[in-house]
Amino acid sequence: MTVAFQGERGAFSEAAAVAYFGNAIHPLPCPTFEAVFEAVERDVAQRGMVPVENSLAGSIHRNYDLLLQHTLSIVGEIQQRIEHHLIVLPGVTLAQVRRVYSHPQALAQCEGRLKQLLPEAELVPTYDTAGSVKMLRDENIRDGAAIASRRAAEIYGMHILEEGMEDSAENYTRFLVLAREPVVPTGPAKTSIVFSVKNVPGSLFKCLAVFALRDIDLTKIESRPLRDKRWEYLFYVDFAGSIYEERCRNALNHLQEITSFFRVLGSYPRGV
Amino acid sequence: MTVAFQGERGAFSEAAAVAYFGNAIHPLPCPTFEAVFEAVERDVAQRGMVPVENSLAGSIHRNYDLLLQHTLSIVGEIQQRIEHHLIVLPGVTLAQVRRVYSHPQALAQCEGRLKQLLPEAELVPTYDTAGSVKMLRDENIRDGAAIASRRAAEIYGMHILEEGMEDSAENYTRFLVLAREPVVPTGPAKTSIVFSVKNVPGSLFKCLAVFALRDIDLTKIESRPLRDKRWEYLFYVDFAGSIYEERCRNALNHLQEITSFFRVLGSYPRGV
Repeated sequence: MTVAFQGERGAFSEAAAVAYFGNAIHPLPCPTFEAVFEAVERDVAQRGMVPVENSLAGSIHRNYDLLLQHTLSIVGEIQQRIEHHLIVLPGVTLAQVRRVYSHPQALAQCEGRLKQLLPEAELVPTYDTAGSVKMLRDENIRDGAAIASRRAAEIYGMHILEEGMEDSAENYTRFLVLAREPVVPTGPAKTSIVFSVKNVPGSLFKCLAVFALRDIDLTKIESRPLRDKRWEYLFYVDFAGSIYEERCRNALNHLQEITSFFRVLGSYPRGV
Repeated sequence: MTVAFQGERGAFSEAAAVAYFGNAIHPLPCPTFEAVFEAVERDVAQRGMVPVENSLAGSIHRNYDLLLQHTLSIVGEIQQRIEHHLIVLPGVTLAQVRRVYSHPQALAQCEGRLKQLLPEAELVPTYDTAGSVKMLRDENIRDGAAIASRRAAEIYGMHILEEGMEDSAENYTRFLVLAREPVVPTGPAKTSIVFSVKNVPGSLFKCLAVFALRDIDLTKIESRPLRDKRWEYLFYVDFAGSIYEERCRNALNHLQEITSFFRVLGSYPRGV
């Protein structure tokens, strides 16, 4: 099975794909999220793996936008703890490291530990974490280190000098699995929907009533202002249950009496 | 009045401070968001200006975390359209530009236009937008351009070669004004609160009922999973009205009957 993801080989999205599907997948690195959606749409990849929210950085609206622009289905989810490691060419010691390369967000998340370990090192921002490891290897940079995933170190045959560089252990990313066709989940399921309502007092309350009145549990809710339609909002809602359950179907039919826009992004097995 | 913000002189947060307070402010650039909160807390700055959500990138959870860790009050808000410009040393032409420097997010937001204008240019990621403009000037780089705000070009005496480089015009950031003491807003007000509830079906619905039953309009709602307490959530809610109105005070008293954690971040004049 070919799984598309954004970033270089060894990206956190690839690690999520391996955690979800196992080692037998054929990874398809893509330069942009858009390219991931297109690869799945054109059946170049059977699945796509994209991040939608991070516990420190928040929701990745770009991927919600792409979900609305394309017609793929969410068929799974997985949460991954983001662990950053200090990675060097084999044989390089801490004393040799003059520069640390990574995405600015990763460098920022390791700021405290980097100051302790390498107070003199220059922090060099790059486009991505795994790409920095690849660059160290390709250019044989022996006075530099990269901040990236364990998988990136493994793929490029590099050495982890220091594990768990991140200042906060509460760093989780939720990834969605995308496919051309929906699945019928067995076992505990989750459904993701997007809708908008006119912003009149109580309209959101009515929307949530359709779930509460049927004892359906919400696992995510987020409002996002629509700029071109001032005072209108998009809502992202995840709830426990699938569209193949009558109770949930009734709730969604009821919801559509209230919403001005409504779309099911997918029902899928609930991740751990 | 001294206003602290994260980034170099010319950062979008500084532009927001000038748009809010006028040109008479004394800008205090800070290396981190944490430093902004500390500057206000220690009265080194009378106000802080921090971004909390961007229409493309989502909520900036880091600043919500800092609001909970510190005891500052939100005393205002302002929305700013994020416009990216291509900035060079005076006299430099498009044909001379070999490299474009900026924060990876800004480079990504201008990807399409950059490909049209400068198909051969190398995109060089940096820590910040305004800092890239400063670097071009300080190091007299004549074969480079930076992507940053109009204000950055003005401050560093640089030339805007091309305006409105961003691929999407729907790029807005909402900034909050922070102070040591709360204000009593006059005119239309907004209040920001954070609370958590046990994740039992219908608990969020009960929380929203306290507003709906009193015809209080919500302008933002966002759930954020609490990792160390699985199945508990933090909710960020903004509503129209202030804690100095009896109707809103009643709603908040009612809300505290249901929540396991509750905090008012501030009531402030509603921005445009």
